[in-house]
Amino acid sequence: MSAATAPFPLSARLREVRGSAIRDLLTLTARPEVLSLAGGLPAADALPRERIAAAAERALHAPSSVQYGETAGLAALREVVAEHESRRLGRPVPAADVVVTSGSQQALDLLARAVVDPGDPVVVEDPAYVGALQVFQAAGAALHAVPLDRDGMDLDALERLLRGGLRPRLVHTVSSFHNPRGVTLAPQRRARLAALADRYGLLVVEDDPYGLLAFTGPPPVPVAAYGDRVVRLGSASKILAPALRVGWLTGPAPVCAAVERLRQCADLCGSTLTQAIAAELLADRPWLDAHLARLRTEGAARAATFTAAVDEAFGDALARSTPTGGMFCWLEFRDGTDTAALLPRALAHGVAFVPGSAFTADDRPRTAAARCCFATLPGPALREAVGRLAAAWRGTS
Amino acid sequence: MSAATAPFPLSARLREVRGSAIRDLLTLTARPEVLSLAGGLPAADALPRERIAAAAERALHAPSSVQYGETAGLAALREVVAEHESRRLGRPVPAADVVVTSGSQQALDLLARAVVDPGDPVVVEDPAYVGALQVFQAAGAALHAVPLDRDGMDLDALERLLRGGLRPRLVHTVSSFHNPRGVTLAPQRRARLAALADRYGLLVVEDDPYGLLAFTGPPPVPVAAYGDRVVRLGSASKILAPALRVGWLTGPAPVCAAVERLRQCADLCGSTLTQAIAAELLADRPWLDAHLARLRTEGAARAATFTAAVDEAFGDALARSTPTGGMFCWLEFRDGTDTAALLPRALAHGVAFVPGSAFTADDRPRTAAARCCFATLPGPALREAVGRLAAAWRGTS
Repeated sequence: MSAATAPFPLSARLREVRGSAIRDLLTLTARPEVLSLAGGLPAADALPRERIAAAAERALHAPSSVQYGETAGLAALREVVAEHESRRLGRPVPAADVVVTSGSQQALDLLARAVVDPGDPVVVEDPAYVGALQVFQAAGAALHAVPLDRDGMDLDALERLLRGGLRPRLVHTVSSFHNPRGVTLAPQRRARLAALADRYGLLVVEDDPYGLLAFTGPPPVPVAAYGDRVVRLGSASKILAPALRVGWLTGPAPVCAAVERLRQCADLCGSTLTQAIAAELLADRPWLDAHLARLRTEGAARAATFTAAVDEAFGDALARSTPTGGMFCWLEFRDGTDTAALLPRALAHGVAFVPGSAFTADDRPRTAAARCCFATLPGPALREAVGRLAAAWRGTS
Repeated sequence: MSAATAPFPLSARLREVRGSAIRDLLTLTARPEVLSLAGGLPAADALPRERIAAAAERALHAPSSVQYGETAGLAALREVVAEHESRRLGRPVPAADVVVTSGSQQALDLLARAVVDPGDPVVVEDPAYVGALQVFQAAGAALHAVPLDRDGMDLDALERLLRGGLRPRLVHTVSSFHNPRGVTLAPQRRARLAALADRYGLLVVEDDPYGLLAFTGPPPVPVAAYGDRVVRLGSASKILAPALRVGWLTGPAPVCAAVERLRQCADLCGSTLTQAIAAELLADRPWLDAHLARLRTEGAARAATFTAAVDEAFGDALARSTPTGGMFCWLEFRDGTDTAALLPRALAHGVAFVPGSAFTADDRPRTAAARCCFATLPGPALREAVGRLAAAWRGTS
């Protein structure tokens, strides 16, 4: 083999990163005949396109809207995010402690690059958000998984690890309406997690893209309301539109400064245009409140449709989570069904979901579980999707 | 010190990354009384805001414009970039070999993460693009600097390193209208660099955001036209608008696949909306050709205004590059002026530039040099800026 045709060596960190089964599935599910419960896509018809178009037109009157912007984010957006966060936390959050990122995924990636060295321990949930697993794998972290139950992360299990001497650089949690598990961390656990962070000098990453999508009552009080050693990640993707690519990180000043410095490397800055759009929409409280109310009502209706269809089709063959917000329902088959084996048959029947094994930090297969997103499809399509899934399952079980 | 107030440990890779003196300067130069020659900002009045607004409105008729998109980029954008690249390279570039990124900066960062392990050697130019230095520092690369002369990278110096046994993972070059040095790699050197890549099994990164901004004649023939072991980085930032955050990478399929996989971690995908805008504008050849002609004419006029003002104000006290495209002019004082010491006085006089020491891979100070961007300001402001710089210089020399 001559040098000209020598292969391109890839970095060790790349070899650690599993491709996302979910993103790869998007290619398959883009086929129009497939009804997808797989992606974490908000309902297309619920995204405020007309409002975004009006905001875009207004923003584009200013020459600055098409120019480079500051790395930490558009000032107007940082201010309105700080206002929202202050209200959520019940204490003032200065705009200087907000860093805007390209979705909350970038916040997570930059945070990991800022504080995790190869070999450093990081605590994740089991099951975990796939994007977090990829980020921590890319950072070379040694992952320690803490199980979830119906009230969120099992803090007894976490405390055993800490008492045993583990000192993780980060503890990652999707605190509200968990992706993929559908559960929400109970209030008393939130206070206890913040206290554990203080006692052991940890940094908690509260990944919260779904908190405002509570079906009933106010959004859960954030973990960060109970302590200072919490970095919060937020996103406009699930409440305004994914295509804005607007997320944010709020937290201790040294962490914000480190993330901002790495964003210079990563992509210089975000889009001034889409940040201006997000700032306008987030600042228009009457419109935003009405929009969020519509999202919550529609989300609750779709969750009810989905779970009723699942209960009718599968009965006792599976246990499922009871959605109280967010976008996901977690199924666990009790009849020996292997969801990885079910998936190709499901695709052949025209329906997609994500097998549970995609969400594990270790190699233990989670063969009985499946994540289904109830938010993307309207009611009749949800019922049809569950019907197809049941047909595929009857063919395999 | 209790655990609750313990500091937040930062990663080793973060400590390697110098903040960008240029980005930090943006804060100072945002003061309205400062005329900035410091940023790499295209002229605000040359950015096609009305055309972007029309394209945004059209794009927002489609529900998909606000949804998540594919990680590798919007299909229509990958196709038009592939067409442009095919024309530049004189051979077909398939759309599958294009990965869209958040500006070419993200392409560079993902590429480094994909192929560079800590300690791996990487060749950069001296002086080098600051964003490349930051990316390679973050990747933990061992940097080896190769000097530039008036015809671009000194390939005799590169070949000496290679003959001496150096096997860099990447050789980074801004081949056309260099940032910061203002020079362009000569055609025969382009062929030779591609041949060296083949002979030694290297991967060349041809960072080319300015190639279409040649003041006279066609854009330079890319290094990638001479060989296959070249990854090309392109950008819409300098020809359409930075706020689109649209850049791209084209290159060997395994490299594209690795970069796409890492983009899943980094931020999932780019903005479907801004990609749709970029795709429409890049596909409208009559409009684009006329727009590029305007950019080139205006750039040439501003370069001429700037260099004439510099020659008149400084005479033989400095040597400067002769811009033939792009955005930058490189000054080297011959009278012992220390540009790092000059900067605060210049800011006091209401003008900003970037001292040469920002662009060095090692700690050798480059005290005599300064980078000035002639593209941002209109002619009268350019003359005023040079006048202020001369006043600051007369006060210090």
